[in-house]
Amino acid sequence: MPIAGEMARFLNAELEGDASARIEGLASPEDARPRDLIYVESERHLARAQSSQAVCVLLPRGLSLSGKIVLRVENPKLAFAKAAEMLIPRQPASRGVHPTALLAASARLAPDVSVGPFTVIEDEVEIRAGVEVGAHCVVGRNTVIGEGTRLYPRVVVYAGSVLGRNVVVHAGCVIGSDGFGYVFGDGRHWKFPQIGRVEIGDEVEIGANTTIDRGSLGVTRIGAGCKLDNLVHVAHNVVIGEQTVIAAQTGISGSTQIGPHVLMGGQVGIADRCRIGERAVLGAQAGVPTGKAIPAGQTVWGTPARPLERFKQQYACLARLPNLLARLEHRLKEPSEN
Amino acid sequence: MPIAGEMARFLNAELEGDASARIEGLASPEDARPRDLIYVESERHLARAQSSQAVCVLLPRGLSLSGKIVLRVENPKLAFAKAAEMLIPRQPASRGVHPTALLAASARLAPDVSVGPFTVIEDEVEIRAGVEVGAHCVVGRNTVIGEGTRLYPRVVVYAGSVLGRNVVVHAGCVIGSDGFGYVFGDGRHWKFPQIGRVEIGDEVEIGANTTIDRGSLGVTRIGAGCKLDNLVHVAHNVVIGEQTVIAAQTGISGSTQIGPHVLMGGQVGIADRCRIGERAVLGAQAGVPTGKAIPAGQTVWGTPARPLERFKQQYACLARLPNLLARLEHRLKEPSEN
Amino acid sequence: MPIAGEMARFLNAELEGDASARIEGLASPEDARPRDLIYVESERHLARAQSSQAVCVLLPRGLSLSGKIVLRVENPKLAFAKAAEMLIPRQPASRGVHPTALLAASARLAPDVSVGPFTVIEDEVEIRAGVEVGAHCVVGRNTVIGEGTRLYPRVVVYAGSVLGRNVVVHAGCVIGSDGFGYVFGDGRHWKFPQIGRVEIGDEVEIGANTTIDRGSLGVTRIGAGCKLDNLVHVAHNVVIGEQTVIAAQTGISGSTQIGPHVLMGGQVGIADRCRIGERAVLGAQAGVPTGKAIPAGQTVWGTPARPLERFKQQYACLARLPNLLARLEHRLKEPSEN
Repeated sequence: MPIAGEMARFLNAELEGDASARIEGLASPEDARPRDLIYVESERHLARAQSSQAVCVLLPRGLSLSGKIVLRVENPKLAFAKAAEMLIPRQPASRGVHPTALLAASARLAPDVSVGPFTVIEDEVEIRAGVEVGAHCVVGRNTVIGEGTRLYPRVVVYAGSVLGRNVVVHAGCVIGSDGFGYVFGDGRHWKFPQIGRVEIGDEVEIGANTTIDRGSLGVTRIGAGCKLDNLVHVAHNVVIGEQTVIAAQTGISGSTQIGPHVLMGGQVGIADRCRIGERAVLGAQAGVPTGKAIPAGQTVWGTPARPLERFKQQYACLARLPNLLARLEHRLKEPSEN
Repeated sequence: MPIAGEMARFLNAELEGDASARIEGLASPEDARPRDLIYVESERHLARAQSSQAVCVLLPRGLSLSGKIVLRVENPKLAFAKAAEMLIPRQPASRGVHPTALLAASARLAPDVSVGPFTVIEDEVEIRAGVEVGAHCVVGRNTVIGEGTRLYPRVVVYAGSVLGRNVVVHAGCVIGSDGFGYVFGDGRHWKFPQIGRVEIGDEVEIGANTTIDRGSLGVTRIGAGCKLDNLVHVAHNVVIGEQTVIAAQTGISGSTQIGPHVLMGGQVGIADRCRIGERAVLGAQAGVPTGKAIPAGQTVWGTPARPLERFKQQYACLARLPNLLARLEHRLKEPSEN
Repeated sequence: MPIAGEMARFLNAELEGDASARIEGLASPEDARPRDLIYVESERHLARAQSSQAVCVLLPRGLSLSGKIVLRVENPKLAFAKAAEMLIPRQPASRGVHPTALLAASARLAPDVSVGPFTVIEDEVEIRAGVEVGAHCVVGRNTVIGEGTRLYPRVVVYAGSVLGRNVVVHAGCVIGSDGFGYVFGDGRHWKFPQIGRVEIGDEVEIGANTTIDRGSLGVTRIGAGCKLDNLVHVAHNVVIGEQTVIAAQTGISGSTQIGPHVLMGGQVGIADRCRIGERAVLGAQAGVPTGKAIPAGQTVWGTPARPLERFKQQYACLARLPNLLARLEHRLKEPSEN
């Protein structure tokens, strides 16, 4: 466990106080014990920090506390997140290869790979160094899992998927399931071939019970550094750029292309063949209709999704409408209608 | 199996007819066999009951049937639900500890606990009397499961969770997965620490494939008696009061506080740091924006969520708008616009 | 693998070129190797086909390519989907009965049934010819699974469910979980009995992590040929007609009846006791309020769902409103309001 001086160097912080104080964990001001690190973002939270048992505090410029060791940084929340990487021991998803795990003879596992109980690794799977696969996972044929990636229990990866390095997949996810495509003819739905694959970039994190379909003929691709929350749905042939963040229960339909650094709230719905520009922001529950393009950097809201200012303006008008209509009616002496 | 007289006493009903008639189950009027109990809520359903094979009928005051044994009660549907607790044998989620289950040496199980095949119970888990854990579950380290709780097959409980008494968790649920929190810096998303826990109160029921994230630094808490439907998402640090009911596919974002006895329709979305007052009612698909407070007892609708009366009034105006605008345009002789 | 002449006969296509050319697979124009079949739907995609390595092309009337073998058909995409059934070997969900599978002594399996590792088949289950059950499935007591049906890994079927022939169920689905019904009384929610069942028709396909609840007293029924995408929720006592298509994250509440050949976009929400007529079309994110009837053939949009034309008209008016109100205000000289 580090001392305050080491932590200050690691975070590029200015230290004000005893450099030899030990830091053993991190916590909220209320839950902290003396050796936990806490952070304060604004004056509003200063009193919580002052009365905390914690001795070491990450503080932005311009704020002060008495009797605390201060690590002064530009962005205390960011520094806190970075400190966590040093302070919190990574929870292993599994330890060693459990004797009940079923590894196909043709699977190639790096020597230090862990595989949890009852997990099934199928033919020709390649699992690289440092990977941990939790209990009850099924990794389909020909899948490749990159260095340091972790699958929590009960993840299913369909055949032929490719996961990058340091990916984290939470429990219950399904990666590489068939896309949803049918052609109607002769009185029934014929399944359009779903023979493509999924590629997940490095450092991606995927929440619990999220589903990512394989490409129909091509590829479904999640860019490096993307973060997907729980119960998200990504359809066939969707391509998502790097560092895009997608909140829970959002659904993205087939062949939609999403730029890098996009932010999506929860329960957003994007129809098929849309294009979402770089750094666009989609408010929670926004709905983007088929084929629509959202320009780079635009913030949109509502269904159909429109620029936030326009949404606000329209919504303000709608709110005034009942009052206005009552007065107008009087003026227009309109006959009653239904 | 009880006789009509016993059932009447159990339900505090007035019995009209043969107290010795046997009741062996319950059913809808159409599917009922003679010894099934049925119920009628209103005059509209009287004919269905009259033509049913069932002999015993739960009836409210003011209605009558010929040739039936009547158990007269204030609320027949409630009495029917109570009768079910007597009549329907609880389906065990498992029977005994299956030899394929993996129990850590340090796990503490009460003598009568059942654990289904292939289930994994990790270190220091405590499972109290009468608990049934179905097949293919994973119960993470240091978790506590209270008396009489049932996990259906394939539930994953992450480390350190606390489940109360008589909780029911349906198949595919994930409890205690990491919250969704990142801080952007240096060109990438840093994971905010997700080291808190989940606490589920007594008598809670959780639907299939629902996900409940652990607190980031603190706790995610589901109050006693809450009922969550399928595919619901509860984010980190959400606190929900007692007896709140949440329909399917609703999502609740981080640090939102929800009072007791709240009712939410399906696909409701609540952003982060909202406060939903006691006994509030949120209509299906309602969207509550970040930080918004819904007063106790209020019924809200739409996105952004507003009081139901205002929603209806605005919606009625919107419906009249095309007609009105056509006429107004004429009056204002407005130049064409786009 | 067929030759072009055989494929033309199979698809009822007119062949233009060498009937003896081999066809070994299918692909997009960009990814195709010479022996892959490709298709072109319209002039817009002609150049992609012309520059493809593929030799055999499905073309509609009126379009031409040089140096290709043409299979001329009315609907190239449909023909492509049909060709896939001949060309793509079905991926087995399992091969043989794995020694780790647990089959109850009273379960009746046809001789050629496959059961994956760690799968649990409970008492009195009947599994018919050609069925493949993937790894980590749990098939509850008294369930019947029809000929040729496939369960991907980690499907849970609760007791007493009936699946038809050639059903495909993707990973993580839960079929037959308890419906969501409670009656409030004496300060708590009493569970309404959930003792009905689920019936899935022939040729149904169900996406990953979708949940289908059992009937409370009766049956939840999915008609033959229906296609459900990922993360869909179907509540107790819902009845869905044949060939209905339901996109991802749609939720259908209790006792709603849906006709045949209905199309639903993603994230649609249908409240309880609605009736959706044959061939109705529900746009993505549409919300249908409790008890509402949508006439056969109608296309609806928005929340509350209304005919598409009306939605468009209202939305167009809303978009004009800010401009109009500004001008009106001037005319009406209205006092400022809030």
